[in-house]
Amino acid sequence: MKEGLKSSLLNKIKVTDKFWRGYQELVMNTVIPYQKKILNDEIPGVEKSHALANFRIAAGLEEGEFYGMVFQDSDVAKWLEGVAYALEVRPDAELEERADKVIEIIEKAQQDDGYLNTFFTIKEPEHRWQNLQECHELYCAGHMMEAAAAYYEVTGKDRLLHVMERMAEHIGKRFGTEEGKEPGIPGHQEIELGLLRLYEVTGKENYKDLARYFIEQRGKDPDYFVKERKKRGWVHFDMDVHNREYNQVHATVYEQKEAVGHSVRAVYMYTAMAELASLYKDEKLYQACCDLWENMTQKRMYITGGIGSTVDGEAFTIDYDLPNDTVYAETCASIGLVFFARKMLDNVIDGRYADVMERALYNGIISGMQLDGKRFFYVNPLETEPGVSGKLYGYKHVLPERPGWYTCACCPPNVVRLLMSLGKYLWSETEEGVYSHIPAGTEAHFDKMDVTVESNYPWDGRVTYHITGKTEEETILGIHIPSWVRPGSVQVRINGKEKNITADVEKGYLILKRVWENDEVELVFPMKIRKIYTNLKVREDAGCVAFMRGPIVYCFEGVDNPGLLQSYHIFEDAKMEEEVCKEGLLEGCVLLKIKARKLETVGDSLYSDIAPVRTLTTLTAVPYYTWGNRGENQMRVWMRGE
Amino acid sequence: MKEGLKSSLLNKIKVTDKFWRGYQELVMNTVIPYQKKILNDEIPGVEKSHALANFRIAAGLEEGEFYGMVFQDSDVAKWLEGVAYALEVRPDAELEERADKVIEIIEKAQQDDGYLNTFFTIKEPEHRWQNLQECHELYCAGHMMEAAAAYYEVTGKDRLLHVMERMAEHIGKRFGTEEGKEPGIPGHQEIELGLLRLYEVTGKENYKDLARYFIEQRGKDPDYFVKERKKRGWVHFDMDVHNREYNQVHATVYEQKEAVGHSVRAVYMYTAMAELASLYKDEKLYQACCDLWENMTQKRMYITGGIGSTVDGEAFTIDYDLPNDTVYAETCASIGLVFFARKMLDNVIDGRYADVMERALYNGIISGMQLDGKRFFYVNPLETEPGVSGKLYGYKHVLPERPGWYTCACCPPNVVRLLMSLGKYLWSETEEGVYSHIPAGTEAHFDKMDVTVESNYPWDGRVTYHITGKTEEETILGIHIPSWVRPGSVQVRINGKEKNITADVEKGYLILKRVWENDEVELVFPMKIRKIYTNLKVREDAGCVAFMRGPIVYCFEGVDNPGLLQSYHIFEDAKMEEEVCKEGLLEGCVLLKIKARKLETVGDSLYSDIAPVRTLTTLTAVPYYTWGNRGENQMRVWMRGE
Repeated sequence: MKEGLKSSLLNKIKVTDKFWRGYQELVMNTVIPYQKKILNDEIPGVEKSHALANFRIAAGLEEGEFYGMVFQDSDVAKWLEGVAYALEVRPDAELEERADKVIEIIEKAQQDDGYLNTFFTIKEPEHRWQNLQECHELYCAGHMMEAAAAYYEVTGKDRLLHVMERMAEHIGKRFGTEEGKEPGIPGHQEIELGLLRLYEVTGKENYKDLARYFIEQRGKDPDYFVKERKKRGWVHFDMDVHNREYNQVHATVYEQKEAVGHSVRAVYMYTAMAELASLYKDEKLYQACCDLWENMTQKRMYITGGIGSTVDGEAFTIDYDLPNDTVYAETCASIGLVFFARKMLDNVIDGRYADVMERALYNGIISGMQLDGKRFFYVNPLETEPGVSGKLYGYKHVLPERPGWYTCACCPPNVVRLLMSLGKYLWSETEEGVYSHIPAGTEAHFDKMDVTVESNYPWDGRVTYHITGKTEEETILGIHIPSWVRPGSVQVRINGKEKNITADVEKGYLILKRVWENDEVELVFPMKIRKIYTNLKVREDAGCVAFMRGPIVYCFEGVDNPGLLQSYHIFEDAKMEEEVCKEGLLEGCVLLKIKARKLETVGDSLYSDIAPVRTLTTLTAVPYYTWGNRGENQMRVWMRGE
Repeated sequence: MKEGLKSSLLNKIKVTDKFWRGYQELVMNTVIPYQKKILNDEIPGVEKSHALANFRIAAGLEEGEFYGMVFQDSDVAKWLEGVAYALEVRPDAELEERADKVIEIIEKAQQDDGYLNTFFTIKEPEHRWQNLQECHELYCAGHMMEAAAAYYEVTGKDRLLHVMERMAEHIGKRFGTEEGKEPGIPGHQEIELGLLRLYEVTGKENYKDLARYFIEQRGKDPDYFVKERKKRGWVHFDMDVHNREYNQVHATVYEQKEAVGHSVRAVYMYTAMAELASLYKDEKLYQACCDLWENMTQKRMYITGGIGSTVDGEAFTIDYDLPNDTVYAETCASIGLVFFARKMLDNVIDGRYADVMERALYNGIISGMQLDGKRFFYVNPLETEPGVSGKLYGYKHVLPERPGWYTCACCPPNVVRLLMSLGKYLWSETEEGVYSHIPAGTEAHFDKMDVTVESNYPWDGRVTYHITGKTEEETILGIHIPSWVRPGSVQVRINGKEKNITADVEKGYLILKRVWENDEVELVFPMKIRKIYTNLKVREDAGCVAFMRGPIVYCFEGVDNPGLLQSYHIFEDAKMEEEVCKEGLLEGCVLLKIKARKLETVGDSLYSDIAPVRTLTTLTAVPYYTWGNRGENQMRVWMRGE
């Protein structure tokens, strides 16, 4: 650990398994360098970013005009945050030097009063802070604070931290309920998370309080943005100010019971709520989080961990409305869901949260990135149809293949920062001990013990925890038993001795409390193929079957299965086998071989009273996250079944 | 038959069966009077029509401004056409007097040069004929020509006919390929049908030739509207001029092989093409119609006879794209499909056309009207979901209950004119004889025979044709054997003597050729319940089952079937029974009782590896056309099945 730094989970946990370490290598070797070039407009034929140029202009280092979206600054922030985490995973002097230079520019772009935002500095200085609804000043600040905290956490360098502390001070002077301040709230939640990260690395209470203010103030006046708009008399995007649910200002956070509106805004807010609940031991706020959690994960979430059913406002819709082919399920929203789950675990160690984190991580998030790291999905559908998906009205947003990542600025860097800081999502450390949420391979150096996890998860269910105790106290090692494991079916050996764990599982965690020396805990999760059924209230999936093995959701693609995917029918007790893919793009993945009926239309009438002919066949299913890597074709997760 | 009138099928055939005569009574007693009040702005709380006021203003009888859509005149035309047919069904001196007065006003609104259109007369005289793409002048003229022909055909009064003959002359002077004329084409096809009706009642060839010109000219220059727009430099609706398929100008009519674009525009055009093909004995044009027919009815038509899969342009999409819950399937489009089918029968007596006519008439058209005649659907979905249909993005146009008909001006009068002239769709009369396309109860007085059909179709399969011959020649009586009847399963008795008809069926018609005296032909169509399967290329319906009995498509509604419709599963060899509804709104309808499995989710998880529990139950299905008459609820035609 670097000197002068507050110890954090980030620094303590190294991801080592093939699966996630592979993703981290991909990000470091491919995504981050590419992204840097994009920000610098060094890739020909790619839409201009101008994001770094904006900072140089605002810093007075260059002449020119602002170019890009009003939130263009956040691209630089997210890149920096990803770089910070990457430097933790693998030091890289050249990359760090580049980042340092960017930070110098950012520092120079900051105004004397602490204000930092290149759009308003260069282009519309007279409009500063007038349009919180649309203009993302607080959003950009939040991302830059997250970057500053991460960079400080990893490198110990505090230049950007100080820049953002000054910005936080500027914001704190302006917004609040005290006399002389404005009771402002962000149009896109994010500042709360940034302030909480500043608090995390500096311990300064005022950041925590300011974050709390933004959360508490939200929805107190559901017409805040209506009034703000009326007062300023101008618009930026001309967004609908009366759709109060869109950015969750329809009610105070305590009164919100259902996940509504823009899904990324929602989960960023819930994350901040959950963190504040744990920091302030605020039971009422935690309860509000629980209500939202239950509604979202039990009524409004795809099997892949995708959230947001409609492109209209990239938003949640209503309970059990989960269409597969017109879905939104933005990659960023699933990432935000993981953020939220992780902060809920800081309140209560409960397997429900780890289960959802696992679901999103192994499925709906990494599906956002092409296996080569070069292209990205915003939208993660559960069914695609060539000629329809990406083409027809209502389906235009559902692309059947990943476009170049540069066309979408938000998801790629979000994937980067999550994957490069993955360690802290895998474990919790409390006064009582440590908790493994996901049995991925890691090397962790906690205060009271070191743990090395040997794992070939998600393909293999055998996971070994090697523990070296560092204290004479009794300490807990908690290991999450995923909810897909039937009670009693997981084998556990402690130092080679078989143990019946039924009595030791609390809220989804195997709780082992002892004075740890050099010990070994071996678990074998049963990796049998599971048929999954939806709650019948989900109209689109009723009467259908999906397949999972371990945490992996599977899908069927046209490239592996001849004919039409909708012509296959899964029947009861059909043979299901697994097969490790030996070569090609999916090498190392476990594929499924599923016996199924194939229906064939007799004749070529559109409608007929002659039942289709049935034959037996074997289908191949591939991990959902790998879909769309082998050309445009049909894909579906939910198959017609019995 | 009235003196001085050319004999027409309209005058020869009277509909007598309970089913269709019931609809005609409903239209005469409820719809037409209500519609008149609407046109006159006499219904409080209803959106202003002003359609008659526009004519009074244009006629100089009243002061005021034009109000309404640019095609508001067509509402008056359609009302008049419906009134004409109604007067044929049941003379009504008061109604006729009202119509006469309206016609007087229309006559006065005509300009000296024959031009008739209140929008351009009152509001934008300087813009006449400049915007064929958007401004519906030819469309309105076409509808008024249809009204004029109908009114003349029924009443023998030629005032409106002469008005529209003058307008036809005006149009003929302006448009054409000859020197000094403009090679114009309508933005919304309809003028062709109007001109052909003028030809039908007057026999004047120039109307037929002008209709042919408009059809032949279409698509010769796919950029015609692009150039027109550029030339005029102003827009009315600002419709996309580059979407050439939208109004079928992407290719000449001979080159069009697929049904594309706005579905009503398409079928109106195809109808004119089919009529011209028969009038000119144009084989090439008939072949073009056949290609379009095949594509539309074998790849782009709902089981209900609905066409147009998307709200985006109220249009066709691609082959086999037939979503049930985001469907458009406009009532008017199915009516146009019947027009097209009927004109195809004038080319070749072929059961394919009668089959589709039957499908649309008994299902997707009358579903457009509430059973009490007071409310109407534009959109006829095959699946609805409360909370989703009519509410969420992508489903807003799919209303779960019929709105007051006044909110949609086009479908109600189209239903009126079709139902009130239904007789001519039921029969054809040729040199060789007569052909019954649909075995509805009728009294028909043809040149060579009188035929009375006794029928309780569609509920009862027993149909009796009583024939009285009027000639010593051998004459054909052709009777369509619907394609849903298995060959050999229809029982036929001629004058009480059983007859095996297998050898006498040609292209779907039982051909009986003889010197008719007083004869009786009795047929019994087997009305067993049929399970219908879709071609598996239809993604949404693959693995599903629908039910038909005779020509009637059935659906399932929540009000009859407790729980969730998607939780039912139809299994092979399930018992299917019928039951005549004894009381209430559906009195007299045959309902179906279908044994099915009901799935029930175990617990209330969103996803689970515990298969739903299955129980046996009996479902009730009602005729599709009756859906949505008993409150908002779930509805579906296609049920999950084996």
